[in-house]
Amino acid sequence: MTQILEIDPANRLARVEPGVTNQQLQLALAEHGFFWPPDPSSAAVCTLGGNLAYNSAGPRAVKYGTVRENTLGLRAVTGLGEEIRAGVMTTKGVVGYDLTRLLIGSEGTLAIITEAILKLTPLPEAKRTLRATYRDIHAAAAAVSAIMAQPITPCALEFMDGASIEMVRDFSDLQLDDGIGALLMIEVDGPEYGLDRSTAAVEQAARVEGVVDIYRAKTKEEVAALWKTRKALSPALRTVAPKKINEDVVVPVSRIPMLISGLEQLAEQYQIRIVNFGHAGNGNIHVNLLVNPDDPDEMQRAAECLSDAFDLVLKLDGTLSGEHGVGLEKRDFVNREIDPVTLRLMHDIRRQFDPNNILNPGKGLPESD
Amino acid sequence: MTQILEIDPANRLARVEPGVTNQQLQLALAEHGFFWPPDPSSAAVCTLGGNLAYNSAGPRAVKYGTVRENTLGLRAVTGLGEEIRAGVMTTKGVVGYDLTRLLIGSEGTLAIITEAILKLTPLPEAKRTLRATYRDIHAAAAAVSAIMAQPITPCALEFMDGASIEMVRDFSDLQLDDGIGALLMIEVDGPEYGLDRSTAAVEQAARVEGVVDIYRAKTKEEVAALWKTRKALSPALRTVAPKKINEDVVVPVSRIPMLISGLEQLAEQYQIRIVNFGHAGNGNIHVNLLVNPDDPDEMQRAAECLSDAFDLVLKLDGTLSGEHGVGLEKRDFVNREIDPVTLRLMHDIRRQFDPNNILNPGKGLPESD
Repeated sequence: MTQILEIDPANRLARVEPGVTNQQLQLALAEHGFFWPPDPSSAAVCTLGGNLAYNSAGPRAVKYGTVRENTLGLRAVTGLGEEIRAGVMTTKGVVGYDLTRLLIGSEGTLAIITEAILKLTPLPEAKRTLRATYRDIHAAAAAVSAIMAQPITPCALEFMDGASIEMVRDFSDLQLDDGIGALLMIEVDGPEYGLDRSTAAVEQAARVEGVVDIYRAKTKEEVAALWKTRKALSPALRTVAPKKINEDVVVPVSRIPMLISGLEQLAEQYQIRIVNFGHAGNGNIHVNLLVNPDDPDEMQRAAECLSDAFDLVLKLDGTLSGEHGVGLEKRDFVNREIDPVTLRLMHDIRRQFDPNNILNPGKGLPESD
Repeated sequence: MTQILEIDPANRLARVEPGVTNQQLQLALAEHGFFWPPDPSSAAVCTLGGNLAYNSAGPRAVKYGTVRENTLGLRAVTGLGEEIRAGVMTTKGVVGYDLTRLLIGSEGTLAIITEAILKLTPLPEAKRTLRATYRDIHAAAAAVSAIMAQPITPCALEFMDGASIEMVRDFSDLQLDDGIGALLMIEVDGPEYGLDRSTAAVEQAARVEGVVDIYRAKTKEEVAALWKTRKALSPALRTVAPKKINEDVVVPVSRIPMLISGLEQLAEQYQIRIVNFGHAGNGNIHVNLLVNPDDPDEMQRAAECLSDAFDLVLKLDGTLSGEHGVGLEKRDFVNREIDPVTLRLMHDIRRQFDPNNILNPGKGLPESD
């Protein structure tokens, strides 16, 4: 395998081709004591190219940032078949415009990435895992805000709403009391010697009014058991409904309760089952509408519900996608988020990279006039 | 003062107008227990607009990143007088292209920034300051690489070469032995309880072959005294030469010794006094050519020396500017770093923002054909 071209620990960087999977990359880096922070749930199959094209970051972004904060430079080929080189081999650099971040998240519509220079982070020595349960989503959201307002930033701050917990109850052997309306999975990493104190600080912040219980895993097996709750979600979703419409909206963390309350109202109004979980530390919530594609009436209600949900997200100063991207599905909603002038400028930029419109045509941006 | 529009600790963000100085901003944020990592030496007079336009980050970038990693969104006005909105209010977001980072570092040539949404970081509880001295630059550079290869990233990793130390000797009352060829100022921050251990880990990494002494400040006064060495440099430079040509090249940290050796050879060859110091953790070295503008022969030699120095930086996979920008002075060197295809694309992008070429015309990029 030649897809990992160079790992350079002294300079904290790696040169990588886009075909390597995130998991292959992490395994190779771990041998040198490093990792690359972006870590989508699909790491086993997600190639670096896909990772870069969608700026997909996963749970660790709350502490370590997204792909944009962890990539130094790129090689790519434009729609004219010409190779360009963006960025630098260093952590500072201001010569020319920043084409690196422009390409990251552009869904393959500007150029095809052929090589990336990644910024590496040393592996933390140790990690602690907490599961905190709350009476309702408002209490859990208050805990998220309190955690983010103190200096110890957790390396994962994952959230499940009441509907998610109900769903997982049958698939998980963890004792979760009735009357739990929300759950947080919290991880804190760092050097072993300070970690119990750091974890205690995060735990204290998480202990807001409405907390039911905070449990700290004491063994590797207990960590695995705690994550089992979270990981049981996807298979559970597949069992209870033939299809899930899976969104990944983002709102400022303090507005998560308004988002979830609003979604509950929409679920009621449109009679659609909605399950919410995701990366609370970034305000990045996976909103899952559970539907039956063979029921045209339900599909119609789901479409209207989704449209209202997007309006709600934007009213809360959020964005329609944190890391799943726009593609075709969300394309026609983009002009609710981005104003016409800015959108026209994006089309103008696109035309400079790909004047013949051959790179992922029609994706990412709504059609221009 | 209305320039700080909003400080929102729960969401770790601030909305700010570009006229506020970095220092005013930091003071306002500190009241809420936060800071904004970019911290140029000119913080007292550097406005946020200038900070954003040059992606200027200063010493803390080694741990906390540059402006690009600490800005969520922007409002700006293009050369057509139209307002655009770039980015989001959240730490994840992939709808549309990343115009935020495209504008950051573009030296005012694409649009005039009118408002920024900044990502805030909680103030660390405490800080430790070390001064490490080395026999030569090779030993100091080995220490920098060793420090960056272990998991505790210092929040400052500043460097002075032998010529800088000689210069400062007369202006500083610190006992610096003869035979010291390089000096590092190292700061480690974090929670108080783990900080002595973290600092010890960094100190151990800094203790490479060729170390002369590592001194840890024990009081605030000692911290101030240690920084005095570093801060004595600028006034000293002004005293010994009528003019300094001040560059801020960047190379991968492991290549700092090659850069410094090469610069020593060029200083000898062109008979120009060169003094080097800067942000070693980012490989961002301030190269100062000390010259007399009234000596045309010296000015000519300095110009040739500088040209060779830029070639050296690029041969070492570096970049011509880390945070001072290109402007007019370095404009004609840009095509040594950026290939013609990429440069043409940058011009094409510029034309979309400013078709009439009224925003800082002629700056940043060499004239196109």
